[in-house]
Amino acid sequence: MQASDIAAHVPTVTVHDPVSWALRVMAVNRLPGMVVVDGSGRPLTVLPGTQVLRLAVAESFQQDPALARTIDEAHADLFWEELADLTVGDCLPAKRAKPLTVAADATLLEVAALMCREHSPLIAVVAPDGSLSGAITLERLLTSLAVSRPES
Amino acid sequence: MQASDIAAHVPTVTVHDPVSWALRVMAVNRLPGMVVVDGSGRPLTVLPGTQVLRLAVAESFQQDPALARTIDEAHADLFWEELADLTVGDCLPAKRAKPLTVAADATLLEVAALMCREHSPLIAVVAPDGSLSGAITLERLLTSLAVSRPES
Repeated sequence: MQASDIAAHVPTVTVHDPVSWALRVMAVNRLPGMVVVDGSGRPLTVLPGTQVLRLAVAESFQQDPALARTIDEAHADLFWEELADLTVGDCLPAKRAKPLTVAADATLLEVAALMCREHSPLIAVVAPDGSLSGAITLERLLTSLAVSRPES
Repeated sequence: MQASDIAAHVPTVTVHDPVSWALRVMAVNRLPGMVVVDGSGRPLTVLPGTQVLRLAVAESFQQDPALARTIDEAHADLFWEELADLTVGDCLPAKRAKPLTVAADATLLEVAALMCREHSPLIAVVAPDGSLSGAITLERLLTSLAVSRPES
C-alpha cells in the first residue's frame, strides 16, 4: 500500500481561524491533530493534537505545574475562555518546523517512521504540486497494517 | 470538574505483553496511547500512540528516512511482522520517563498543561495508593471542556 491508498480527506484550518475553532473541529472530527493550510490549500504545518491544545494553554501553565495547581476548579474548567479572538496564527511558534508531509507514493513504513520520529499521529499527504491531497492518522495506519498482516 | 470526573477505564498492557498486542489493543479501542502497568496494576509508563508505534519500527528506519525509502512496498506493508515475539519490555527505552499521571483531584487545566508539556494525548489518573484508577484522552478532555463552555 501507498500513502495515497490510505489517506483520507480531513478538515483543515488556516492561520486566520480562531484557536477555539481549531480545537472544536479536531474534537468533532475525532482527529489526532490538525493540518494548517495556507491560502492556496498547501500544508503550512501539521500540529499533533497536544500541540493544538498547546495553542490554548498559557505558556506559564505549561511550564509550571505548581502555578496550574493554584487555579481553582471552576476557573480551570474555563481556561480556554481567555482565548476569545486569538487565532491559530497568533499562537503558532515563530519558528515553525517544516510540515509533516509525505508524497502520495510513500510506503506505510515511511509514514510510520515519520510519525515515530516527529511524535505526530497525523501526517499530511501532498500532491506533486504541493497541494494537500489528504492525511493519515495513526489509527488509520494501524488499521491498514493490520489488514496487510496474516492473522496470527 | 476534576480528573476523576472525566477519567475512563482503559485497557492496559504489561512489559510482558507482545508489542503487536499493544498496537492491536490501542487500535481496536481507538486509544491515542497505552498505559503500561506493573504486576500490581500501578502505571509504569504512559506511552503516546506514536511511541507505542515506535516500539514496532526499527531504530534505523526511524533515524534515516532514506533507508526506509529503500524498502519496497510489499515488504513495507509487513514491517511489523519482524516483531514476532518482542515484548513491550524488550522495546521500551532503558531510561524511562516518569509515568504521566495526575491525582484524582487534578483540575482539567492541570491535565491540559501536562498533555501539552509532555506531548501526550493520554494521561493516567492514579489513586492515593498509586494504583491506576483510569485515564484521560485528549479527545475526552476537549469534549469535557466544551461542555463547561458557554456556547459561543
